[in-house]
Amino acid sequence: MTSNFEPYYAVIFTSKRTEGDNGYAEMSQLMNSLAKKQKGFIGVDSARNNIGITVSYWKNLEAIKNWKQQTDHLMAQKKGRTDWYSWYNVKICKVEREYEFGH
Amino acid sequence: MTSNFEPYYAVIFTSKRTEGDNGYAEMSQLMNSLAKKQKGFIGVDSARNNIGITVSYWKNLEAIKNWKQQTDHLMAQKKGRTDWYSWYNVKICKVEREYEFGH
Repeated sequence: MTSNFEPYYAVIFTSKRTEGDNGYAEMSQLMNSLAKKQKGFIGVDSARNNIGITVSYWKNLEAIKNWKQQTDHLMAQKKGRTDWYSWYNVKICKVEREYEFGH
Repeated sequence: MTSNFEPYYAVIFTSKRTEGDNGYAEMSQLMNSLAKKQKGFIGVDSARNNIGITVSYWKNLEAIKNWKQQTDHLMAQKKGRTDWYSWYNVKICKVEREYEFGH
């Protein structure tokens, strides 16, 4: 962390999957590659055991809004509710401080 | 999301493990139970595949600071750097909006 740290945004997506793949893996890869092309996209981290956590990072709230309304992503959101997730929670967060160990 | 949404804080802990357990599982459970006893603790979610993501939620920045400086947790942080993690990143975030699907 430095004194000139510039805040950015994180979207914490926590989810529980339904049984079976149902086209999830393919769409997940597609959404990742589409997100990377969005203006203001910084990066994404994902992990899943019992619960899935995906955190995507964005330069500002506008970039998050644009991604939420992107046409293909809207289709994936719909499939998410009908086919892939029994539950999910989305949190929009402002990253205010950050520090790191190792490399 | 409601208009009277009250912001709270998230600590996003992203990490890469070293090889072997080295006492990690036991300490991890202990830290979870200690965190739950901290004032201002709201909850925690964890998942790990190639990368580990743990997000803990707190009522305010003071609660996060207190947890960071808790004696047993300080010992775990030290062991984290010497034994358990080859890399980690900590982000302190203000949760500004939230929505959910399913239950």
